[in-house]
Amino acid sequence: MKNFGQRYNHKYIRNFIQKIFIKSKLSKIDSYIVASSLVYADLKGVWSHGIARTSVYYKRIEQKLAKARPKIKFKKIFPSVAHIDGDNGLGFIIANQAIKKCISLAKKNGVGVVGVHNSNHFGMAALYVEKATKNNCICWVFTNASKAIPPHGSMTPHFGTSPFAFGCPTNNPKKPFIIDMASSSVARGKLKFAAQRGEKIPFGLALDKFGKPTNDGFKAFEGIMLPFGGMKGAAISWMMDIVAGIFTGAAHSGKVKNPIKDFSGSSNVGHLMICIRTDVFQKGSFFKKKMKTGILKVKKLKLAKGFKEILYPGEPEYTNYVKNLKQGIQISEDVRVDLERLAKKLKIKSIF
Amino acid sequence: MKNFGQRYNHKYIRNFIQKIFIKSKLSKIDSYIVASSLVYADLKGVWSHGIARTSVYYKRIEQKLAKARPKIKFKKIFPSVAHIDGDNGLGFIIANQAIKKCISLAKKNGVGVVGVHNSNHFGMAALYVEKATKNNCICWVFTNASKAIPPHGSMTPHFGTSPFAFGCPTNNPKKPFIIDMASSSVARGKLKFAAQRGEKIPFGLALDKFGKPTNDGFKAFEGIMLPFGGMKGAAISWMMDIVAGIFTGAAHSGKVKNPIKDFSGSSNVGHLMICIRTDVFQKGSFFKKKMKTGILKVKKLKLAKGFKEILYPGEPEYTNYVKNLKQGIQISEDVRVDLERLAKKLKIKSIF
Repeated sequence: MKNFGQRYNHKYIRNFIQKIFIKSKLSKIDSYIVASSLVYADLKGVWSHGIARTSVYYKRIEQKLAKARPKIKFKKIFPSVAHIDGDNGLGFIIANQAIKKCISLAKKNGVGVVGVHNSNHFGMAALYVEKATKNNCICWVFTNASKAIPPHGSMTPHFGTSPFAFGCPTNNPKKPFIIDMASSSVARGKLKFAAQRGEKIPFGLALDKFGKPTNDGFKAFEGIMLPFGGMKGAAISWMMDIVAGIFTGAAHSGKVKNPIKDFSGSSNVGHLMICIRTDVFQKGSFFKKKMKTGILKVKKLKLAKGFKEILYPGEPEYTNYVKNLKQGIQISEDVRVDLERLAKKLKIKSIF
Repeated sequence: MKNFGQRYNHKYIRNFIQKIFIKSKLSKIDSYIVASSLVYADLKGVWSHGIARTSVYYKRIEQKLAKARPKIKFKKIFPSVAHIDGDNGLGFIIANQAIKKCISLAKKNGVGVVGVHNSNHFGMAALYVEKATKNNCICWVFTNASKAIPPHGSMTPHFGTSPFAFGCPTNNPKKPFIIDMASSSVARGKLKFAAQRGEKIPFGLALDKFGKPTNDGFKAFEGIMLPFGGMKGAAISWMMDIVAGIFTGAAHSGKVKNPIKDFSGSSNVGHLMICIRTDVFQKGSFFKKKMKTGILKVKKLKLAKGFKEILYPGEPEYTNYVKNLKQGIQISEDVRVDLERLAKKLKIKSIF
């Protein structure tokens, strides 16, 4: 399920993607935020949440299912708690403002909690978690999503593959500890690409639409994704729908619309963000020092078979980042064709 | 791995367990808290965290590795944030005060965050989460624990099987939504009992001490427990050590002592609790109404093979509770023998 293709300098691609969103009537700065968020996912190797999704976001704006110029409203509820109405803008723009607000609440009051409703798909959750880590916070970011995996005991997709995302600083500000994992056995975006390319996937990730195990990418994408760790992952995806959906005032219980294939209305995705300063219980430097000690200890543990090194969550993505920053991001043929088609339609000169 | 044995009225057992802790020099009220917490776990069917552990907690007090009369210190850091030094008391007593503090911070300021250090094993995390749900909060409770499962890429146990615990109210105040799941494939307590009884366990839960898959309860208990969902559960157990250990000022990175078999010093377990009022973003009644709608919707989904009903997290435990409250809690022969031995030693009249 790898994304083979020619490599391009990320700035070159970012400018191109930004032009697409400017043509879609987003402000220059908002277009930059969307473009750089998508390119950043590709740099980190998370291509399932990268520029491959450009035309999906474009289409929602074009069909007036998301607003190019939302009027995002902030409401302070308590010194540590704020509520944001995203006014149906793109998730990147709303979540970007939400995490900034959450960090500033935490800086002032130790903890910040921000609930968001009327939002859309916000890309890779790590984008926001990472910002918090760079501001010396531990951070959780929750979102809900369109129905994709069944609750335990059912075979009907109902909850999202919403990521469980957590992060905190390490001693190296460039390499924070970041967990960003779908509550399904595999990211939905990866199944989508396997489906488009007719690829095989490992058994155990999904059932076909009749409830039978499958290793066919297309049947899996059309079928039922399984949660990670059985009933445990299923419980986490339900929790996500509660805290990001029911709790924030967003859509919930299977009502969030699929951004890729449901164009019947706005999505009303919800997010919940929690930031806590790393120095509330100890001197400022202690947290990072202990993280360093902790990571070094883990790296010295006995390796399991097939491993050359023990990496902490977020480390493999950082390695991708360094490589792709230098060598350029890989763009597969189908993504290139899709972007060229979009550029032609919007009368933007192709860069490929 | 079921706990067969005679049934006893829970109040009868609770009084007996309370006597044991009073004899261990705990105050009457603290003894009651410990006894009722243990019995409550048994009522809920979570016998691995119930009265079977009585002698373990007793032994830590007896050997002066935990204090019978701790001086628990509270420090308010911000209006929403408090730090608790448990002074090495039993985890039940400290965590019970911590969740009360966390709820009261949330009631006043929307959100409460409480970090705890110098604590001990606090039993079933659901105990504390449930209290928060009954006070109209969504709640996360994190704790760290002695080394039991390896980080991804290693075969050395290093992080705890610490539970991921979350809860929120539902429309039925007696039946909150409660997730309380070990980050291992199976609760460590269950492996312990399988080991003691020489029982077989399913493959895939653990490796033996040489790194080979095993279905032998004893070899599994002596060996390496595997995290749930592979690298995803491994990441969650690492997160738990960070937020409950590194962040709170407690022991971390494999230094929390095993309460059952390591008597070389105090444990210094850490906990982190987060409570947020369910009405911060919407009118008070909305949350519970939406939970009701959400749960009813899930219950009507198409059943997977082998299921008669879809239950939400916390519901099976509530069913156990109702049954055991009426019929009494089951006490297995080995637990009865262990408690009788302890009673004899402390000159408490046996109730069996």
